[in-house]
Amino acid sequence: MTYCLGMKLDAGMVFASDSRTNAGVDNVGRFEKMRVYEKPGERVIVALSAGNLSVTQNALGLMDHQARKDPHATHFNNASSLFEIAGALGDAMREVQRRDGEYMRANKIDASASFIVGGQIAGEAPRLFLVYTEGNFIESSRETNYFQIGEIKYGKPIIDRVLTRRTSLQDAVKCALISFDSTMRSNISVGPPIDVLVLETDALRVGVTQRLDEGDPYLTQVRQAWSDGLKRLYVQMPAPPWYSETPALQQAAQQAQQ
Amino acid sequence: MTYCLGMKLDAGMVFASDSRTNAGVDNVGRFEKMRVYEKPGERVIVALSAGNLSVTQNALGLMDHQARKDPHATHFNNASSLFEIAGALGDAMREVQRRDGEYMRANKIDASASFIVGGQIAGEAPRLFLVYTEGNFIESSRETNYFQIGEIKYGKPIIDRVLTRRTSLQDAVKCALISFDSTMRSNISVGPPIDVLVLETDALRVGVTQRLDEGDPYLTQVRQAWSDGLKRLYVQMPAPPWYSETPALQQAAQQAQQ
Repeated sequence: MTYCLGMKLDAGMVFASDSRTNAGVDNVGRFEKMRVYEKPGERVIVALSAGNLSVTQNALGLMDHQARKDPHATHFNNASSLFEIAGALGDAMREVQRRDGEYMRANKIDASASFIVGGQIAGEAPRLFLVYTEGNFIESSRETNYFQIGEIKYGKPIIDRVLTRRTSLQDAVKCALISFDSTMRSNISVGPPIDVLVLETDALRVGVTQRLDEGDPYLTQVRQAWSDGLKRLYVQMPAPPWYSETPALQQAAQQAQQ
Repeated sequence: MTYCLGMKLDAGMVFASDSRTNAGVDNVGRFEKMRVYEKPGERVIVALSAGNLSVTQNALGLMDHQARKDPHATHFNNASSLFEIAGALGDAMREVQRRDGEYMRANKIDASASFIVGGQIAGEAPRLFLVYTEGNFIESSRETNYFQIGEIKYGKPIIDRVLTRRTSLQDAVKCALISFDSTMRSNISVGPPIDVLVLETDALRVGVTQRLDEGDPYLTQVRQAWSDGLKRLYVQMPAPPWYSETPALQQAAQQAQQ
Protein backbone atom coordinates (compact mmCIF):
# COMPACT_ATOMS: atom_id res chain seq x y z
CA MET A 1 0.00 0.00 0.00
CA THR A 2 1.01 3.57 -0.60
CA TYR A 3 -0.08 6.91 0.74
CA CYS A 4 0.20 10.10 -1.31
CA LEU A 5 -1.12 13.55 -0.58
CA GLY A 6 -1.37 16.76 -2.60
CA MET A 7 -2.50 20.04 -1.03
CA LYS A 8 -3.34 23.28 -2.82
CA LEU A 9 -3.17 26.45 -0.77
CA ASP A 10 -3.20 30.13 -1.63
CA ALA A 11 0.53 30.22 -0.89
CA GLY A 12 1.36 27.20 -3.04
CA MET A 13 1.28 23.43 -3.00
CA VAL A 14 2.65 20.63 -0.85
CA PHE A 15 3.09 17.11 -2.19
CA ALA A 16 4.07 14.10 -0.09
CA SER A 17 4.40 10.41 -0.83
CA ASP A 18 5.77 7.37 0.87
CA SER A 19 8.09 5.12 -1.08
CA ARG A 20 7.04 1.69 -0.01
CA THR A 21 5.46 -0.77 -2.42
CA ASN A 22 3.72 -3.80 -1.08
CA ALA A 23 3.18 -6.99 -3.02
CA GLY A 24 2.55 -9.18 0.01
CA VAL A 25 4.18 -8.99 3.41
CA ASP A 26 7.38 -10.77 2.43
CA ASN A 27 7.89 -8.63 -0.63
CA VAL A 28 7.95 -5.02 0.46
CA GLY A 29 9.95 -2.95 -1.99
CA ARG A 30 10.70 0.71 -2.28
CA PHE A 31 9.95 2.70 -5.38
CA GLU A 32 9.58 6.40 -5.80
CA LYS A 33 5.98 7.45 -6.10
CA MET A 34 6.78 11.07 -6.91
CA ARG A 35 7.85 12.27 -10.34
CA VAL A 36 8.79 15.89 -10.86
CA TYR A 37 8.92 17.72 -14.18
CA GLU A 38 10.54 21.12 -13.86
CA LYS A 39 11.52 23.81 -16.38
CA PRO A 40 12.45 26.70 -14.09
CA GLY A 41 10.50 29.84 -14.97
CA GLU A 42 8.08 27.88 -17.14
CA ARG A 43 6.58 24.91 -15.31
CA VAL A 44 6.70 22.57 -12.35
CA ILE A 45 4.52 19.47 -12.49
CA VAL A 46 4.39 16.76 -9.87
CA ALA A 47 2.79 13.33 -10.37
CA LEU A 48 2.13 11.07 -7.38
CA SER A 49 1.02 7.50 -8.01
CA ALA A 50 -0.71 4.79 -6.01
CA GLY A 51 -2.07 1.35 -6.73
CA ASN A 52 -0.74 -1.30 -9.08
CA LEU A 53 2.88 -0.33 -9.77
CA SER A 54 2.98 -1.90 -13.24
CA VAL A 55 -0.05 0.18 -14.25
CA THR A 56 1.25 3.51 -12.94
CA GLN A 57 4.81 2.96 -14.25
CA ASN A 58 3.50 1.91 -17.64
CA ALA A 59 1.09 4.84 -17.90
CA LEU A 60 3.99 7.25 -17.31
CA GLY A 61 6.29 5.17 -19.52
CA LEU A 62 3.74 5.21 -22.33
CA MET A 63 3.49 9.01 -22.19
CA ASP A 64 7.30 9.28 -22.33
CA HIS A 65 7.42 6.81 -25.21
CA GLN A 66 4.74 8.61 -27.23
CA ALA A 67 6.41 11.98 -26.67
CA ARG A 68 9.69 10.63 -28.03
CA LYS A 69 7.99 9.31 -31.17
CA ASP A 70 5.84 12.38 -31.70
CA PRO A 71 6.94 15.76 -30.30
CA HIS A 72 3.32 16.98 -30.52
CA ALA A 73 1.98 14.25 -28.21
CA THR A 74 0.78 15.69 -24.89
CA HIS A 75 3.47 15.36 -22.25
CA PHE A 76 4.33 16.87 -18.88
CA ASN A 77 7.08 18.83 -20.61
CA ASN A 78 5.09 20.44 -23.40
CA ALA A 79 1.39 20.67 -22.43
CA SER A 80 0.05 24.23 -22.17
CA SER A 81 -2.32 23.30 -19.34
CA LEU A 82 -2.51 20.89 -16.43
CA PHE A 83 -6.02 19.99 -17.56
CA GLU A 84 -4.50 18.57 -20.74
CA ILE A 85 -1.97 16.58 -18.74
CA ALA A 86 -4.61 15.06 -16.46
CA GLY A 87 -6.54 13.95 -19.55
CA ALA A 88 -3.44 12.49 -21.21
CA LEU A 89 -2.53 10.60 -18.04
CA GLY A 90 -6.06 9.18 -17.87
CA ASP A 91 -5.82 8.12 -21.51
CA ALA A 92 -2.45 6.46 -20.88
CA MET A 93 -3.89 4.57 -17.90
CA ARG A 94 -6.81 3.36 -20.04
CA GLU A 95 -4.38 2.17 -22.71
CA VAL A 96 -2.39 0.17 -20.13
CA GLN A 97 -5.58 -1.28 -18.65
CA ARG A 98 -6.68 -2.33 -22.16
CA ARG A 99 -3.36 -4.08 -22.74
CA ASP A 100 -2.75 -5.65 -19.30
CA GLY A 101 -5.99 -5.49 -17.32
CA GLU A 102 -7.53 -8.70 -18.61
CA TYR A 103 -4.41 -10.72 -17.80
CA MET A 104 -4.24 -9.33 -14.28
CA ARG A 105 -7.92 -9.89 -13.60
CA ALA A 106 -7.53 -13.51 -14.81
CA ASN A 107 -5.14 -13.98 -11.87
CA LYS A 108 -7.26 -11.91 -9.46
CA ILE A 109 -4.62 -9.19 -9.34
CA ASP A 110 -5.93 -5.77 -8.41
CA ALA A 111 -5.16 -3.58 -11.41
CA SER A 112 -6.52 -0.37 -9.92
CA ALA A 113 -4.27 2.68 -9.80
CA SER A 114 -4.57 6.42 -9.47
CA PHE A 115 -2.59 9.63 -9.75
CA ILE A 116 -2.47 12.99 -8.10
CA VAL A 117 -1.06 15.45 -10.61
CA GLY A 118 -0.57 19.10 -9.93
CA GLY A 119 1.69 22.08 -10.21
CA GLN A 120 1.81 25.22 -12.30
CA ILE A 121 2.46 26.09 -15.94
CA ALA A 122 3.25 29.69 -16.87
CA GLY A 123 0.05 31.38 -18.01
CA GLU A 124 -2.28 29.56 -15.64
CA ALA A 125 -2.83 29.38 -11.89
CA PRO A 126 -1.59 26.38 -9.89
CA ARG A 127 -3.90 23.40 -10.39
CA LEU A 128 -4.36 20.05 -8.71
CA PHE A 129 -6.03 16.97 -10.21
CA LEU A 130 -6.95 13.47 -9.15
CA VAL A 131 -6.96 10.86 -11.95
CA TYR A 132 -9.01 7.76 -11.16
CA THR A 133 -8.25 4.19 -12.18
CA GLU A 134 -10.89 4.46 -14.94
CA GLY A 135 -9.07 7.42 -16.46
CA ASN A 136 -11.64 10.07 -15.53
CA PHE A 137 -10.45 12.90 -13.31
CA ILE A 138 -11.49 15.75 -11.02
CA GLU A 139 -9.90 19.06 -10.09
CA SER A 140 -9.52 20.51 -6.60
CA SER A 141 -11.82 23.37 -5.62
CA ARG A 142 -12.16 26.00 -2.92
CA GLU A 143 -13.99 23.48 -0.75
CA THR A 144 -11.82 20.47 -1.54
CA ASN A 145 -8.29 21.72 -1.59
CA TYR A 146 -6.43 18.45 -1.12
CA PHE A 147 -6.41 14.99 -2.64
CA GLN A 148 -5.22 11.70 -1.20
CA ILE A 149 -4.60 8.38 -2.96
CA GLY A 150 -3.76 4.92 -1.65
CA GLU A 151 -4.27 4.28 2.07
CA ILE A 152 -6.25 7.47 2.62
CA LYS A 153 -8.51 7.07 5.62
CA TYR A 154 -6.23 6.91 8.66
CA GLY A 155 -4.60 10.22 7.75
CA LYS A 156 -7.74 12.10 6.69
CA PRO A 157 -9.21 13.34 10.01
CA ILE A 158 -6.28 15.60 10.90
CA ILE A 159 -6.33 17.25 7.46
CA ASP A 160 -10.07 17.85 7.70
CA ARG A 161 -9.54 19.51 11.06
CA VAL A 162 -6.71 21.92 10.30
CA LEU A 163 -6.19 22.55 6.58
CA THR A 164 -7.71 25.58 4.87
CA ARG A 165 -6.75 27.49 1.74
CA ARG A 166 -5.02 30.03 3.93
CA THR A 167 -2.79 27.53 5.73
CA SER A 168 0.88 28.49 5.29
CA LEU A 169 3.19 26.14 3.43
CA GLN A 170 5.20 25.44 6.59
CA ASP A 171 2.02 24.53 8.44
CA ALA A 172 0.83 22.39 5.53
CA VAL A 173 4.09 20.43 5.69
CA LYS A 174 3.47 19.82 9.40
CA CYS A 175 -0.11 18.72 8.66
CA ALA A 176 1.11 16.37 5.91
CA LEU A 177 3.65 14.70 8.20
CA ILE A 178 1.10 14.26 11.00
CA SER A 179 -1.26 12.72 8.46
CA PHE A 180 1.52 10.33 7.38
CA ASP A 181 2.29 9.51 11.00
CA SER A 182 -1.32 8.46 11.68
CA THR A 183 -1.27 6.33 8.53
CA MET A 184 2.06 4.69 9.32
CA ARG A 185 0.94 3.80 12.84
CA SER A 186 -2.17 2.01 11.58
CA ASN A 187 -0.89 0.44 8.35
CA ILE A 188 2.52 -1.17 8.48
CA SER A 189 2.82 -1.22 4.69
CA VAL A 190 3.05 2.59 4.58
CA GLY A 191 6.41 3.83 5.81
CA PRO A 192 9.47 6.03 5.35
CA PRO A 193 11.14 7.34 3.35
CA ILE A 194 8.62 10.11 2.82
CA ASP A 195 9.27 12.46 -0.06
CA VAL A 196 8.05 16.02 0.42
CA LEU A 197 7.93 18.75 -2.21
CA VAL A 198 6.92 22.38 -1.64
CA LEU A 199 5.99 24.62 -4.55
CA GLU A 200 5.24 28.32 -4.05
CA THR A 201 2.54 29.98 -6.14
CA ASP A 202 3.97 31.68 -9.25
CA ALA A 203 7.53 30.62 -8.41
CA LEU A 204 7.54 28.22 -11.37
CA ARG A 205 10.44 26.37 -9.79
CA VAL A 206 10.56 23.77 -7.02
CA GLY A 207 10.71 25.42 -3.60
CA VAL A 208 12.21 22.51 -1.76
CA THR A 209 12.31 18.74 -1.96
CA GLN A 210 13.17 16.68 1.05
CA ARG A 211 13.46 12.96 1.60
CA LEU A 212 12.65 11.98 5.19
CA ASP A 213 14.17 8.60 5.94
CA GLU A 214 13.44 6.38 8.92
CA GLY A 215 15.14 8.15 11.81
CA ASP A 216 15.19 11.57 10.13
CA PRO A 217 15.54 14.02 13.06
CA TYR A 218 12.68 16.31 12.05
CA LEU A 219 10.29 13.47 11.24
CA THR A 220 11.16 11.80 14.55
CA GLN A 221 10.63 15.06 16.43
CA VAL A 222 7.20 15.64 14.87
CA ARG A 223 6.09 12.04 15.43
CA GLN A 224 7.20 12.11 19.07
CA ALA A 225 5.77 15.54 19.85
CA TRP A 226 2.46 14.61 18.23
CA SER A 227 2.21 11.30 20.03
CA ASP A 228 3.10 12.81 23.43
CA GLY A 229 0.76 15.74 22.87
CA LEU A 230 -2.17 13.49 21.91
CA LYS A 231 -1.67 11.38 25.00
CA ARG A 232 -1.59 14.48 27.21
CA LEU A 233 -4.69 15.83 25.51
CA TYR A 234 -6.50 12.52 25.94
CA VAL A 235 -5.72 12.45 29.65
CA GLN A 236 -7.12 15.99 29.98
CA MET A 237 -10.43 15.10 28.32
CA PRO A 238 -13.39 15.32 30.71
CA ALA A 239 -14.50 11.99 32.17
CA PRO A 240 -18.01 10.75 31.41
CA PRO A 241 -20.32 12.15 34.11
CA TRP A 242 -22.55 9.07 33.90
CA TYR A 243 -19.93 6.45 34.69
CA SER A 244 -17.26 6.02 37.35
CA GLU A 245 -15.38 2.88 38.17
CA THR A 246 -16.78 1.06 41.23
CA PRO A 247 -14.58 1.46 44.34
CA ALA A 248 -13.28 -2.12 43.97
CA LEU A 249 -12.13 -1.41 40.41
CA GLN A 250 -10.52 1.89 41.41
CA GLN A 251 -8.60 0.11 44.14
CA ALA A 252 -7.46 -2.60 41.73
CA ALA A 253 -6.28 0.06 39.28
CA GLN A 254 -4.33 1.86 41.99
CA GLN A 255 -2.68 -1.38 43.05
CA ALA A 256 -1.75 -2.17 39.45
CA GLN A 257 0.00 1.19 39.22
CA GLN A 258 2.06 0.68 42.38
CA MET B 1 -22.37 3.16 6.94
CA THR B 2 -22.01 2.25 10.57
CA TYR B 3 -19.22 2.35 13.09
CA CYS B 4 -19.08 -0.06 16.03
CA LEU B 5 -16.33 -0.64 18.54
CA GLY B 6 -15.75 -3.23 21.27
CA MET B 7 -12.85 -2.93 23.73
CA LYS B 8 -11.66 -5.54 26.22
CA LEU B 9 -9.66 -4.30 29.18
CA ASP B 10 -8.57 -5.84 32.44
CA ALA B 11 -11.24 -3.80 34.21
CA GLY B 12 -14.04 -4.76 31.82
CA MET B 13 -15.42 -3.97 28.42
CA VAL B 14 -16.70 -0.94 26.56
CA PHE B 15 -19.04 -1.21 23.58
CA ALA B 16 -20.11 1.66 21.37
CA SER B 17 -22.16 1.91 18.19
CA ASP B 18 -23.72 4.60 16.11
CA SER B 19 -27.33 4.22 15.09
CA ARG B 20 -27.37 5.52 11.56
CA THR B 21 -28.10 3.27 8.63
CA ASN B 22 -27.33 4.46 5.16
CA ALA B 23 -28.99 3.16 2.04
CA GLY B 24 -28.05 6.10 -0.17
CA VAL B 25 -27.83 9.75 0.80
CA ASP B 26 -31.55 10.44 0.64
CA ASN B 27 -32.44 7.44 2.73
CA VAL B 28 -30.57 7.69 6.00
CA GLY B 29 -32.43 5.81 8.71
CA ARG B 30 -31.71 5.06 12.31
CA PHE B 31 -31.67 1.55 13.69
CA GLU B 32 -30.11 0.27 16.81
CA LYS B 33 -26.90 -1.61 16.15
CA MET B 34 -26.45 -2.79 19.72
CA ARG B 35 -28.36 -5.71 21.21
CA VAL B 36 -27.89 -6.59 24.86
CA TYR B 37 -28.73 -9.91 26.49
CA GLU B 38 -28.56 -9.71 30.27
CA LYS B 39 -29.40 -12.17 33.04
CA PRO B 40 -28.02 -10.37 36.10
CA GLY B 41 -25.59 -12.56 38.01
CA GLU B 42 -25.33 -15.03 35.14
CA ARG B 43 -24.50 -13.33 31.85
CA VAL B 44 -24.22 -10.13 29.87
CA ILE B 45 -23.75 -10.44 26.13
CA VAL B 46 -23.57 -7.56 23.68
CA ALA B 47 -23.86 -7.90 19.91
CA LEU B 48 -22.91 -4.99 17.65
CA SER B 49 -23.69 -5.24 13.95
CA ALA B 50 -22.48 -3.53 10.78
CA GLY B 51 -23.06 -3.98 7.08
CA ASN B 52 -26.21 -5.03 5.26
CA LEU B 53 -29.04 -4.46 7.72
CA SER B 54 -31.26 -7.21 6.31
CA VAL B 55 -28.44 -9.73 6.79
CA THR B 56 -27.60 -8.75 10.38
CA GLN B 57 -31.25 -8.44 11.45
CA ASN B 58 -32.10 -11.77 9.85
CA ALA B 59 -29.12 -13.55 11.40
CA LEU B 60 -30.24 -12.41 14.87
CA GLY B 61 -33.88 -13.08 13.99
CA LEU B 62 -33.04 -16.59 12.83
CA MET B 63 -31.28 -17.35 16.12
CA ASP B 64 -34.31 -16.09 18.06
CA HIS B 65 -36.64 -18.11 15.85
CA GLN B 66 -34.66 -21.33 16.23
CA ALA B 67 -34.44 -20.90 20.00
CA ARG B 68 -38.20 -20.56 20.24
CA LYS B 69 -38.73 -23.75 18.23
CA ASP B 70 -35.99 -25.72 20.00
CA PRO B 71 -34.94 -24.76 23.54
CA HIS B 72 -31.63 -26.60 23.00
CA ALA B 73 -30.62 -24.46 20.01
CA THR B 74 -27.64 -22.24 20.83
CA HIS B 75 -28.78 -18.76 21.78
CA PHE B 76 -27.41 -15.72 23.58
CA ASN B 77 -29.62 -16.62 26.52
CA ASN B 78 -28.58 -20.24 27.02
CA ALA B 79 -25.08 -20.84 25.60
CA SER B 80 -22.47 -21.84 28.17
CA SER B 81 -19.69 -20.03 26.36
CA LEU B 82 -19.22 -16.98 24.17
CA PHE B 83 -17.23 -19.15 21.79
CA GLU B 84 -20.39 -21.12 21.12
CA ILE B 85 -22.37 -17.94 20.51
CA ALA B 86 -19.84 -16.58 18.02
CA GLY B 87 -20.07 -19.87 16.11
CA ALA B 88 -23.87 -19.87 16.15
CA LEU B 89 -23.96 -16.27 14.93
CA GLY B 90 -21.59 -17.17 12.09
CA ASP B 91 -23.81 -20.13 11.18
CA ALA B 92 -26.91 -17.92 11.20
CA MET B 93 -25.20 -15.40 8.93
CA ARG B 94 -24.23 -18.19 6.51
CA GLU B 95 -27.84 -19.39 6.47
CA VAL B 96 -29.10 -15.90 5.62
CA GLN B 97 -26.46 -15.49 2.93
CA ARG B 98 -27.52 -18.82 1.42
CA ARG B 99 -31.14 -17.72 1.34
CA ASP B 100 -30.77 -14.07 0.29
CA GLY B 101 -27.22 -13.55 -0.97
CA GLU B 102 -27.80 -14.63 -4.56
CA TYR B 103 -30.78 -12.27 -4.97
CA MET B 104 -28.83 -9.35 -3.57
CA ARG B 105 -25.78 -10.02 -5.73
CA ALA B 106 -28.06 -10.19 -8.79
CA ASN B 107 -28.92 -6.54 -8.10
CA LYS B 108 -25.32 -5.62 -7.15
CA ILE B 109 -26.32 -5.08 -3.53
CA ASP B 110 -23.50 -5.45 -1.04
CA ALA B 111 -24.56 -8.33 1.20
CA SER B 112 -21.53 -8.18 3.49
CA ALA B 113 -22.10 -7.85 7.22
CA SER B 114 -20.23 -8.46 10.45
CA PHE B 115 -20.68 -8.63 14.19
CA ILE B 116 -18.73 -7.81 17.30
CA VAL B 117 -20.00 -10.04 20.07
CA GLY B 118 -18.67 -10.00 23.59
CA GLY B 119 -19.45 -10.02 27.25
CA GLN B 120 -19.20 -12.51 30.07
CA ILE B 121 -20.98 -15.71 31.06
CA ALA B 122 -20.60 -17.00 34.62
CA GLY B 123 -17.85 -19.61 34.67
CA GLU B 124 -15.64 -17.98 32.06
CA ALA B 125 -13.63 -14.79 31.72
CA PRO B 126 -14.95 -11.89 29.63
CA ARG B 127 -14.48 -12.60 25.94
CA LEU B 128 -14.69 -10.56 22.76
CA PHE B 129 -15.20 -11.90 19.23
CA LEU B 130 -15.38 -10.56 15.70
CA VAL B 131 -17.61 -12.54 13.31
CA TYR B 132 -16.84 -11.96 9.63
CA THR B 133 -19.30 -11.84 6.75
CA GLU B 134 -18.29 -15.39 5.75
CA GLY B 135 -19.25 -16.68 9.20
CA ASN B 136 -15.72 -17.39 10.43
CA PHE B 137 -14.59 -15.52 13.54
CA ILE B 138 -11.63 -14.47 15.68
CA GLU B 139 -11.20 -13.71 19.37
CA SER B 140 -9.40 -10.74 20.89
CA SER B 141 -5.98 -11.33 22.46
CA ARG B 142 -3.50 -9.58 24.71
CA GLU B 143 -2.07 -7.80 21.66
CA THR B 144 -5.37 -7.05 19.93
CA ASN B 145 -7.75 -6.00 22.64
CA TYR B 146 -10.33 -4.19 20.55
CA PHE B 147 -12.38 -4.81 17.42
CA GLN B 148 -14.02 -2.37 15.05
CA ILE B 149 -16.60 -3.02 12.33
CA GLY B 150 -18.09 -0.79 9.64
CA GLU B 151 -16.29 2.47 8.89
CA ILE B 152 -13.21 1.54 10.88
CA LYS B 153 -10.21 3.45 9.57
CA TYR B 154 -10.79 7.09 10.50
CA GLY B 155 -11.19 6.21 14.18
CA LYS B 156 -8.39 3.65 14.45
CA PRO B 157 -5.25 5.80 14.94
CA ILE B 158 -6.35 7.25 18.30
CA ILE B 159 -7.17 3.81 19.69
CA ASP B 160 -3.80 2.46 18.58
CA ARG B 161 -2.10 5.33 20.36
CA VAL B 162 -3.75 5.23 23.75
CA LEU B 163 -5.55 1.97 24.48
CA THR B 164 -3.88 -0.78 26.49
CA ARG B 165 -5.25 -3.62 28.57
CA ARG B 166 -4.71 -1.52 31.67
CA THR B 167 -6.72 1.48 30.46
CA SER B 168 -9.49 2.28 32.93
CA LEU B 169 -13.11 1.97 31.82
CA GLN B 170 -13.63 5.74 32.14
CA ASP B 171 -10.62 6.38 29.94
CA ALA B 172 -11.76 3.74 27.46
CA VAL B 173 -15.10 5.55 27.15
CA LYS B 174 -13.21 8.77 26.38
CA CYS B 175 -11.09 6.97 23.80
CA ALA B 176 -14.19 5.46 22.19
CA LEU B 177 -15.90 8.84 21.86
CA ILE B 178 -12.79 10.47 20.39
CA SER B 179 -12.61 7.60 17.91
CA PHE B 180 -16.26 8.20 16.99
CA ASP B 181 -15.61 11.92 16.66
CA SER B 182 -12.80 11.35 14.13
CA THR B 183 -15.07 9.00 12.19
CA MET B 184 -18.06 11.34 12.20
CA ARG B 185 -15.96 14.25 10.97
CA SER B 186 -14.69 12.30 7.95
CA ASN B 187 -17.78 10.23 7.08
CA ILE B 188 -21.10 12.01 7.15
CA SER B 189 -23.03 8.73 7.16
CA VAL B 190 -21.77 7.91 10.68
CA GLY B 191 -23.48 10.04 13.33
CA PRO B 192 -25.27 10.31 16.64
CA PRO B 193 -26.98 8.89 18.52
CA ILE B 194 -24.08 6.87 19.87
CA ASP B 195 -24.94 4.04 22.22
CA VAL B 196 -22.33 3.25 24.87
CA LEU B 197 -22.32 0.27 27.21
CA VAL B 198 -19.83 -0.37 30.01
CA LEU B 199 -19.44 -3.81 31.54
CA GLU B 200 -17.17 -4.42 34.53
CA THR B 201 -15.24 -7.68 34.76
CA ASP B 202 -17.07 -10.29 36.86
CA ALA B 203 -20.02 -7.95 37.53
CA LEU B 204 -22.26 -10.12 35.32
CA ARG B 205 -24.64 -7.21 34.98
CA VAL B 206 -24.55 -4.12 32.77
CA GLY B 207 -22.53 -1.31 34.39
CA VAL B 208 -24.09 1.52 32.47
CA THR B 209 -25.75 2.17 29.15
CA GLN B 210 -25.94 5.64 27.75
CA ARG B 211 -27.40 7.04 24.56
CA LEU B 212 -25.58 10.16 23.39
CA ASP B 213 -27.79 12.12 21.03
CA GLU B 214 -26.79 14.99 18.78
CA GLY B 215 -26.20 17.88 21.16
CA ASP B 216 -25.60 15.66 24.21
CA PRO B 217 -23.66 17.94 26.61
CA TYR B 218 -20.86 15.45 27.39
CA LEU B 219 -20.41 14.40 23.75
CA THR B 220 -20.34 18.06 22.70
CA GLN B 221 -17.80 18.86 25.43
CA VAL B 222 -15.48 16.01 24.39
CA ARG B 223 -15.74 16.84 20.69
CA GLN B 224 -15.02 20.53 21.28
CA ALA B 225 -12.18 19.96 23.75
CA TRP B 226 -10.57 17.42 21.43
CA SER B 227 -10.88 19.64 18.37
CA ASP B 228 -9.51 22.71 20.17
CA GLY B 229 -6.72 20.68 21.75
CA LEU B 230 -5.66 19.16 18.43
CA LYS B 231 -5.50 22.57 16.79
CA ARG B 232 -3.39 23.94 19.66
CA LEU B 233 -1.11 20.92 19.47
CA TYR B 234 -0.73 21.30 15.70
CA VAL B 235 0.25 24.94 16.04
CA GLN B 236 2.89 23.94 18.62
CA MET B 237 4.50 21.34 16.35
CA PRO B 238 8.05 22.26 15.29
CA ALA B 239 8.31 23.83 11.84
CA PRO B 240 10.35 22.02 9.16
CA PRO B 241 13.94 23.24 9.46
CA TRP B 242 14.48 22.81 5.71
CA TYR B 243 11.70 25.10 4.52
CA SER B 244 10.57 28.62 5.35
CA GLU B 245 8.20 30.76 3.35
CA THR B 246 9.98 33.33 1.18
CA PRO B 247 9.73 36.89 2.57
CA ALA B 248 7.12 37.84 -0.09
CA LEU B 249 4.91 34.95 0.99
CA GLN B 250 5.32 35.77 4.69
CA GLN B 251 4.28 39.34 4.00
CA ALA B 252 1.24 38.19 2.00
CA ALA B 253 0.24 35.89 4.87
CA GLN B 254 0.57 38.72 7.40
CA GLN B 255 -1.55 41.00 5.24
CA ALA B 256 -4.21 38.30 4.87
CA GLN B 257 -4.42 38.08 8.66
CA GLN B 258 -4.87 41.84 9.14
